[in-house]
Amino acid sequence: MSNPLKVEAPAGIPFIDWEREFDAPVEAVFRAHKDPDLIKQWLGPRRYEMDIDSYDFRTGGRYRYLHRADGEEYAFNGVFHVVRENEFAIQTFEFEGFPDVVSIESMTFEALDDGRSRVRGHSTYPSMEARDGMVESGMEGGMSEGYERLDEVLAEL
Amino acid sequence: MSNPLKVEAPAGIPFIDWEREFDAPVEAVFRAHKDPDLIKQWLGPRRYEMDIDSYDFRTGGRYRYLHRADGEEYAFNGVFHVVRENEFAIQTFEFEGFPDVVSIESMTFEALDDGRSRVRGHSTYPSMEARDGMVESGMEGGMSEGYERLDEVLAEL
Repeated sequence: MSNPLKVEAPAGIPFIDWEREFDAPVEAVFRAHKDPDLIKQWLGPRRYEMDIDSYDFRTGGRYRYLHRADGEEYAFNGVFHVVRENEFAIQTFEFEGFPDVVSIESMTFEALDDGRSRVRGHSTYPSMEARDGMVESGMEGGMSEGYERLDEVLAEL
Repeated sequence: MSNPLKVEAPAGIPFIDWEREFDAPVEAVFRAHKDPDLIKQWLGPRRYEMDIDSYDFRTGGRYRYLHRADGEEYAFNGVFHVVRENEFAIQTFEFEGFPDVVSIESMTFEALDDGRSRVRGHSTYPSMEARDGMVESGMEGGMSEGYERLDEVLAEL
């Protein structure tokens, strides 16, 4: 039985908050967010193939990746404002299908008892429309499926 | 008579929007935002001396600067998500006195008739408290004074 993803999109304010626990140590979960060879195994829904143009998960680094399925291609890019090992990251996020609509998201990596861990995220969007559009894109289902894939990656580390 | 700064901090949503016109071409205004030797002559209130650690105003670049006055020192840093010459920029912004509270701001540079230009900005904060704190810090007065200094820099270009 997998750990549930909790997602909240509060009314009237352009945030998305989420939380997910993992049956794996914080170091492993952080590594699966940092290492491009690992992240491409789990980020996003199963039906997408992920191609990484660049992925430099450190303070000041940049990233760009593509999700491909059924002949369609979706590109995403951003910069890492700060990355602290096994602890914290803030990055910008742009879906190139909506150019110049850029959100910022923080992620906290937290060690729990018994070798478990928790990730908490807070995304801030530049308009209510951008936040609502993200929610309506099926983002929660995609994240949930992605984190189930991450469970599988972590089980093999 | 200087062009007025319009600042709006709408109720209940963590944004700050602003707009300012300049009696100078958009290329000059953009250059005054890009060139570290120029930006240190105008960004912020007159009483501050500005020291630039790094300032790389291009897509993927970073910046860090300090404002000093009366023996006090205030440091700021961020990354540039995108910069398009004479047109547009998105950057992150962190006051190091409130670490990990990071906003994202877009700036649009627009040519007007008669060699004039307009800058429009939109800042998004990760909480209402962070937005309100920025407003209460006297940010509008500081921006207004900074843009008057920018008018002086532009007059000399």
